[in-house]
Amino acid sequence: MTPFKLTAELLTEIEQLIEVKKNDDLKSLLGTMHYADMAEIVNELNENEATYLIKLLDSDTTSDVLTELDDDIREAILGNLSTKEIAEEIEELDTDDAADIIAELPEDIVREVISEIEDKEHAKDIVDLLRYDEYSAGGLMAKELVKVNYNWNVMTCVKEMRAQAKNVTRVHSIYVVDDDEKLIGRLSLKDLLTAATTVPIREVYTAKKVDSVKVNEKPEEVAKIMSKYDLEAIPVIDEIGRLVGRITIDDIVDVIKEEAEKDYQLAAGISQDVEADDSIWELTRARLPWLILGLFGGLGAAAIMVNFEEMIAEHAILFFFTPLIAAMAGNVGVQSSAIIVQGLANDDLKGSIGNRLIKEILLALLNGLILAAILLLAIWFWKDDFLIALAISLSLIAVIVVAGFIGTFTPLFLDKRGIDPAIATGPFITTSNDIFGIIIYFLIAKLILGI
Amino acid sequence: MTPFKLTAELLTEIEQLIEVKKNDDLKSLLGTMHYADMAEIVNELNENEATYLIKLLDSDTTSDVLTELDDDIREAILGNLSTKEIAEEIEELDTDDAADIIAELPEDIVREVISEIEDKEHAKDIVDLLRYDEYSAGGLMAKELVKVNYNWNVMTCVKEMRAQAKNVTRVHSIYVVDDDEKLIGRLSLKDLLTAATTVPIREVYTAKKVDSVKVNEKPEEVAKIMSKYDLEAIPVIDEIGRLVGRITIDDIVDVIKEEAEKDYQLAAGISQDVEADDSIWELTRARLPWLILGLFGGLGAAAIMVNFEEMIAEHAILFFFTPLIAAMAGNVGVQSSAIIVQGLANDDLKGSIGNRLIKEILLALLNGLILAAILLLAIWFWKDDFLIALAISLSLIAVIVVAGFIGTFTPLFLDKRGIDPAIATGPFITTSNDIFGIIIYFLIAKLILGI
Repeated sequence: MTPFKLTAELLTEIEQLIEVKKNDDLKSLLGTMHYADMAEIVNELNENEATYLIKLLDSDTTSDVLTELDDDIREAILGNLSTKEIAEEIEELDTDDAADIIAELPEDIVREVISEIEDKEHAKDIVDLLRYDEYSAGGLMAKELVKVNYNWNVMTCVKEMRAQAKNVTRVHSIYVVDDDEKLIGRLSLKDLLTAATTVPIREVYTAKKVDSVKVNEKPEEVAKIMSKYDLEAIPVIDEIGRLVGRITIDDIVDVIKEEAEKDYQLAAGISQDVEADDSIWELTRARLPWLILGLFGGLGAAAIMVNFEEMIAEHAILFFFTPLIAAMAGNVGVQSSAIIVQGLANDDLKGSIGNRLIKEILLALLNGLILAAILLLAIWFWKDDFLIALAISLSLIAVIVVAGFIGTFTPLFLDKRGIDPAIATGPFITTSNDIFGIIIYFLIAKLILGI
Repeated sequence: MTPFKLTAELLTEIEQLIEVKKNDDLKSLLGTMHYADMAEIVNELNENEATYLIKLLDSDTTSDVLTELDDDIREAILGNLSTKEIAEEIEELDTDDAADIIAELPEDIVREVISEIEDKEHAKDIVDLLRYDEYSAGGLMAKELVKVNYNWNVMTCVKEMRAQAKNVTRVHSIYVVDDDEKLIGRLSLKDLLTAATTVPIREVYTAKKVDSVKVNEKPEEVAKIMSKYDLEAIPVIDEIGRLVGRITIDDIVDVIKEEAEKDYQLAAGISQDVEADDSIWELTRARLPWLILGLFGGLGAAAIMVNFEEMIAEHAILFFFTPLIAAMAGNVGVQSSAIIVQGLANDDLKGSIGNRLIKEILLALLNGLILAAILLLAIWFWKDDFLIALAISLSLIAVIVVAGFIGTFTPLFLDKRGIDPAIATGPFITTSNDIFGIIIYFLIAKLILGI
């Protein structure tokens, strides 16, 4: 398949069709389109056009489109729909997507929408899901699953399953519960189909411990478990082991992508989830705080250098190398912290903090020696002053070792304190390393040059 | 479930059991363990211990463990196994995992291993897969799938499916092909089960175009398609539309994670796929090239500053702010490039390059004005010299605008040229921005201070 590519022509065509209200043409143009593609189009329309389309098309198409839209567009569209229209969209959605959308509505609207939902069971499931924190397994899970009681016989089971499966798009597993709704095992379709119809489920199900997660588990943990064990769905249990929902891999793919984007943005000094197409104001809010931090770091570095001003007359060259020192301190710090942040995210840091710091110091020493040797030769050749070349090069080694130490220690420390270590990468580490680097550089240079 | 956590005690226990060859204890301790957990243990053992365990346990357990091991450990273990033993492991694996492992073996060993595989059909499928580039849909796909011919009747179909399904762990879809093996549709299990046994498949299958990818499609593209359309499996077709394999979402989760890690590492100035537990030598090879780049950048900055040396007597303060200028140029560049790189990765950059550059310049101007205002007040207050405060602050604005421009332009340019734009983030952009920043800074300062 060639993936759908939204062209300017198609967009113009749709805008014109909306303009002149050619409803039949719009329906035939958009009717067979995948909801994810249609969402791309709606994201580019203005509020009125978008609302017009959503109202025009059937809610079994548009409900899925709504789940894929950018938050601000969805909010605008829902603001233009009546509670009855919203309820119709909700009716078509799986409980997890329905709850996500309802959670974004104002509180008084929520109550009205819920009361307008015709399928009362569906409404109850959604209300159940609204109780859970968005950033938890409970906030990710859907109520749609196939479960059977271990006391049922195979025939009841098949009948019940048929009723349940109507609402479940993809049956990944048949979960077996006891009379207290506790998850006790899993049933394979094959076993079910080959057993006699009067046999009770407890005699055919697989009692082996089922992989499951607790409702309050963090999404990143669920993602780790599902991707480590290659699961396509995982049941969710409450505090006392009752089966309350299930999470499917497509939601986890989104979690993994969002986590990765967040860490990447933090490392680049962007503090909120922004995209290239957000407004200049949103982008500024995400970027400016880190730049202000960098600005104060630079002011700090300048304030330090003032204290070494007496060296400027005789050794002006020292001051020409401060950008180099700051850059190396920053680069080494970012490298070290990034490796630790990734190790923490993947749970593959073994051994003690002490050993890790010693390893990083040895690594920094090795890199520092190589870099210092290059720098020594470059400056010596350029300035024909061995002592100044030596002073700058030895300082560089010290700066790199300290930068590596800080870059390794900071994320480990933050993680121990329960703070997201990813904030330690990027501007945070470069700014603090700039300052430490400049201090160490001038102190060592002063010592060697004997001023 | 509490995720498995490898403790030092468990590791010591296993090492001791291996030492004294308590095979039964080892089997009962490891027998019920998930292969992903066992792989974590084997990764921590030495070569002899690891080989001992793999030889001791059944190949239906150890084959999956092998797929999850770190590359170097797997290579070491396979080096200790006979071609017959390797063939036994391969026999237990799905064709995609089997091909991945075989592709790592030396060429002469490959031939022997293939000839030792008893299931000739399996061997043929693996050989087929070895033809494809590792970084393509063909390199990711497995041969295990359920396909039926559209001329078969329902009964033949069910019989054939049963035979095929034996080898397929999870049946995601039943694919329908014509006599030329071309993929023409999909069959739902429900339609199959409700149709009369003599009805031909062509009357019951869904002819609607099936989402599929070409064998030579890039893994990132496959990942984009599957995650956009929430697919759990996608069929792979060859150049003329014949069904040749399928890719499942668990492999795509790995692709997504690897892509994200690669971009993150590039942004942090780490050029190869390394982990915190790799050797100092491997880490140095991944980190040193970027540091050397930074070193030459710093030498370049110093060489530029020498040209402005005449300003040092009267305006030494200018030289105290070079780390600030370099840091701000670097931070803005990284922010801008990271947003572009992410936008390119997610395919959500709309509009022309020109518009994007204008937007970034406006954004940089806004940020620059705010930052320059803070800096102006800080320096003016500190040094009581308005002109120098003005010179430094105005330079800062210019530096930030140029840095934003370079940060936006570079990844867009690389992407147009078919080069991975992610290399433009991190040290590459900070180093070039440092140099441009220092030049602009001194030129503007010189102009304003009239030296």
